[in-house]
Amino acid sequence: MTAPASNPLLSDRDVDFQLYEVLDTEALCQLPAFADHSRETFTLFLDSTRRFARDVLLPTYRLMDNEPPSFRDGRVHVHPLMRKLYPQLVELGLLSATHPVEAGGQQLPITVYSLASAYLMAANLSAYGFIGLTSGAAHLIQAFGSPWLKDEFMARMYRGEWTGTMALTEPQAGSSLADVKTRATPAGDGTYRITGSKIFISGGDQDFTENVVHLTLARIEGAPAGTRGLSLFAVPARRPEGGRLVDNDVRVAGAIHKIGWKGLPSLALNYGEGGDCRGWLVGEAGKGLAHMFQMMNEARIMVGLNGVATASVAYHEALAYAQNRPQGRPAWEKDAARPQRPIIEHADVRRMLLRQKAIVEGGLSLLAAASWQADVAVHGKTEEERRRAGLLLDLLTPLAKTFPAEKGFEANALAVQVHGGYGYSSEYLPEAYLRDQKLNSIHEGTTGIQGLDLLGRKVMAAGGEAMRAFTEEVGATVERARKAGVEPAWGEALNRAQQEVVELTMELGAAGMAGEVERMLRHSADYMELFSVLAVSWRWLAQAAAAREGLARGGESRDFYEGKLAAAQYWLNTELPRVTHLVALCRSGEDSYTRMKPEWF
Amino acid sequence: MTAPASNPLLSDRDVDFQLYEVLDTEALCQLPAFADHSRETFTLFLDSTRRFARDVLLPTYRLMDNEPPSFRDGRVHVHPLMRKLYPQLVELGLLSATHPVEAGGQQLPITVYSLASAYLMAANLSAYGFIGLTSGAAHLIQAFGSPWLKDEFMARMYRGEWTGTMALTEPQAGSSLADVKTRATPAGDGTYRITGSKIFISGGDQDFTENVVHLTLARIEGAPAGTRGLSLFAVPARRPEGGRLVDNDVRVAGAIHKIGWKGLPSLALNYGEGGDCRGWLVGEAGKGLAHMFQMMNEARIMVGLNGVATASVAYHEALAYAQNRPQGRPAWEKDAARPQRPIIEHADVRRMLLRQKAIVEGGLSLLAAASWQADVAVHGKTEEERRRAGLLLDLLTPLAKTFPAEKGFEANALAVQVHGGYGYSSEYLPEAYLRDQKLNSIHEGTTGIQGLDLLGRKVMAAGGEAMRAFTEEVGATVERARKAGVEPAWGEALNRAQQEVVELTMELGAAGMAGEVERMLRHSADYMELFSVLAVSWRWLAQAAAAREGLARGGESRDFYEGKLAAAQYWLNTELPRVTHLVALCRSGEDSYTRMKPEWF
Repeated sequence: MTAPASNPLLSDRDVDFQLYEVLDTEALCQLPAFADHSRETFTLFLDSTRRFARDVLLPTYRLMDNEPPSFRDGRVHVHPLMRKLYPQLVELGLLSATHPVEAGGQQLPITVYSLASAYLMAANLSAYGFIGLTSGAAHLIQAFGSPWLKDEFMARMYRGEWTGTMALTEPQAGSSLADVKTRATPAGDGTYRITGSKIFISGGDQDFTENVVHLTLARIEGAPAGTRGLSLFAVPARRPEGGRLVDNDVRVAGAIHKIGWKGLPSLALNYGEGGDCRGWLVGEAGKGLAHMFQMMNEARIMVGLNGVATASVAYHEALAYAQNRPQGRPAWEKDAARPQRPIIEHADVRRMLLRQKAIVEGGLSLLAAASWQADVAVHGKTEEERRRAGLLLDLLTPLAKTFPAEKGFEANALAVQVHGGYGYSSEYLPEAYLRDQKLNSIHEGTTGIQGLDLLGRKVMAAGGEAMRAFTEEVGATVERARKAGVEPAWGEALNRAQQEVVELTMELGAAGMAGEVERMLRHSADYMELFSVLAVSWRWLAQAAAAREGLARGGESRDFYEGKLAAAQYWLNTELPRVTHLVALCRSGEDSYTRMKPEWF
Repeated sequence: MTAPASNPLLSDRDVDFQLYEVLDTEALCQLPAFADHSRETFTLFLDSTRRFARDVLLPTYRLMDNEPPSFRDGRVHVHPLMRKLYPQLVELGLLSATHPVEAGGQQLPITVYSLASAYLMAANLSAYGFIGLTSGAAHLIQAFGSPWLKDEFMARMYRGEWTGTMALTEPQAGSSLADVKTRATPAGDGTYRITGSKIFISGGDQDFTENVVHLTLARIEGAPAGTRGLSLFAVPARRPEGGRLVDNDVRVAGAIHKIGWKGLPSLALNYGEGGDCRGWLVGEAGKGLAHMFQMMNEARIMVGLNGVATASVAYHEALAYAQNRPQGRPAWEKDAARPQRPIIEHADVRRMLLRQKAIVEGGLSLLAAASWQADVAVHGKTEEERRRAGLLLDLLTPLAKTFPAEKGFEANALAVQVHGGYGYSSEYLPEAYLRDQKLNSIHEGTTGIQGLDLLGRKVMAAGGEAMRAFTEEVGATVERARKAGVEPAWGEALNRAQQEVVELTMELGAAGMAGEVERMLRHSADYMELFSVLAVSWRWLAQAAAAREGLARGGESRDFYEGKLAAAQYWLNTELPRVTHLVALCRSGEDSYTRMKPEWF
């Protein structure tokens, strides 16, 4: 068996397709914020990023997977390669790529940045993880911090001198942030004394920069119970004092032995055991969770990208394996004297690969669409445009976070399966990607939490305005597909499914307003599933339209477009019909797990 | 958080229910072969097995998971605990429990043995793996071997002095056994000289008994290409010569680093590198694959049991966690001043647990039903009974192998998910069970191979006789449920789905007979999926009937029966309707992955 060619991580052709054929990312340059940009500057950024991902990051992946960080003498020692990699990642401009030039950034559209960062995640998600966390934490200070915090903390973080974390979870408070107990007591000098324990803090310590700033949720003494009593603090591991850094009494209490993302430590931290931990309030007291949601929403999109990236790198691994591994012959050709055929020729292997492609590229398209709304939400020309885009982004975020996590895990399992017995061994990479992927349904809000967020909040937002905007988007795509000459049945099926979902949503919303909250939310998992299928069907119809348009233009991409149409056909014929079943289920009142009593298990 | 109580592995109440309420296992004692048995002797065996599984095996699981076998100086060193465990497992009578008393066995029904062995698999699947492989290999010699082989090899294997393996796969021949290249040359003394390479040989070497016998597929010189040129050989690692054991030139060429089943080595073996490897023909030359299918079919049922067992132990882990972990409050009770509630009270957690229960107990019921047919196929009173049971066993085998592997993996992922961030760490057990489970969709015939076997062979067998027998079984269960007072809609839905599947099967069969093999087999994966859902729905309806009967009898098991009815409701309302969607898909001719060309990916 020949070794697979080196993994492309994502298909460049597909990334270009998503940016410039499915979406019209060049049109973003008409917005004042992006006026200095052009397809050329986007390409420069994408090319340098993907080159670095392939040439530098990917070869480090397995090394870091094999040698996770160690915890010795109260300090965490990450893989020594990070000392070299982190400055290089900073050098690429990743920490503030989407921020204004005057703030040291490149003011790139998030759409471009998202797709570029997916290469880095596919190559080595842990190494990129430090960047994502630091960037998100710095952005929180940028949005809500005092000028002093910006100068002293944020600037150093953006320059790559310090890293950052988000510190929400506590042993007794994971999904339930209302139960955060970490306390903040005014120290009299404008700072607060912080005491408490956090857990699962990604990047909570490292030894490649001199400091780490924890953006920490804590409760100021006397604040009310629940989430409205939470405030946000910047709590550095070492604090500036008298022109130098002194220990700030944040101790690493232990390391979680994660099964994936092994390059990125996940830690338990104790604040103020020695009574000397200082935190700086970020933004308004009592608004901690609201502020934190900026970072959480960015992080949820990032988790979605990680899900796509992790499924993508494994898909490309499986594809290369299937093209090169000879095994067996078609069912109707049993002559064992003839040479064996590459397994990609077997229908079931092709099914597994096409399913992976549909999940990976459908997921990428969903993330690109969400990122596009993130750009317009901030930089759109009119208030109305920005508002509409903001609502769409909010609606798409739980889907963009969850679909890649859940279906990506299935895709990753298929990549193992395509490798047969070899896939079950750590001599091959797919098992590692499968382990990595599993985290994405858990961190930054579990799939269960996302389902409650989608159904209980997002689709009901602004009196149904978000849902109406989504319906318009679907309608526009159906119209585009019709004009492009896409199989009419596909658009009709999508329209029908959309209508079914709208009706279901109104019914459930009415139940909620009538006080039947349990009934409204009972099938939130099924609702998440059906809405994910619907949203990805929307993206596949958009891709089919762009592929038809491309075929009509002629040129060299015929194979690529045919592949897109086959994947669209697969998804729209195989997955989209499931929406009807799931809508019926949500509507049926099926109550087995609500009436199931703990003692019946 | 309190530590979960020690894991029960499987629910004893459920095992009793499957044996004596869903099935009538005592009725097997009316067959002459089981005349000496009674519920009391079954209970004795079950009790000693489950006690050993819980008290002795389970505590060794993580130790063996953490310290996989090492390969040094050409020998494999398994975990030192195996030196103690293996004789104890032998002492329990596991190697020949189902064999006649005169052959040293206990003549237990396979039905009883299967459910007992599931405890051992749930506790430590690798330790049990050596038993399963040795028993299967010895049974092959028992069925087809010469008296000399029985005395010299089989007897020692059954006594626990030697172990056994099945050696089919080669680097170029996994799913495609037609391409096996290992050669056998008559040595002139009745033995054969064996040369070739095998890979993925589970238990292919160990250091706790003095010898290992590899039941090996090889091609006798001059034999035709393809599977009909294969013969079966017993090839010991050390051969008896002059009253002692001498090296038989089978070299361990390397060890696969599996991601689970870590206690059981998976090896590459080279036969006859030094020109001195002897093999003994087992059965008829050219019938190797047919003979081997006895072991493979037993192994497939064993894989199914492993799948159920691995999902079960993780389910019980998740259940205990959910009962003990407080987190959050119901959506309609947001007062953060009140104490948090155990997560089992959240609808979505209960959904995840109920889904696991439905998969685990539905799978166990399917394995029990298949095992029952295995008993009747051999010991049934009439030729006709035996024949019918044999056809049903053949039909159920690919389902019983695949459903627990595929849906069990989903259940295992849910067990991780219920544990939240803790589930993603190797401080908790669910991640290990998730790794273990993944093998079951790959070994002993991948899921893809099982789909082809089911649709291309099993449902078409004997002119549709197997399918008719299955339809009768479903009909009888629907009738039993009706009489017991089970919700009539459930039985009607099952009947309808059964009818849909019969019609689809006839259509596909007609296509096959018309030479359209590609079209017949195109949706074999979807067909496997829909038939699995159907078969497990049949088992859930049977369980609902038995639960209703139990409730009518009254007594102490009310909670247990209510749980059964809720799980049946969940499965029949949530999963069974998917059959209609999948039948439509198989029928539609949907051809995306068959027309997808390799260069379109």
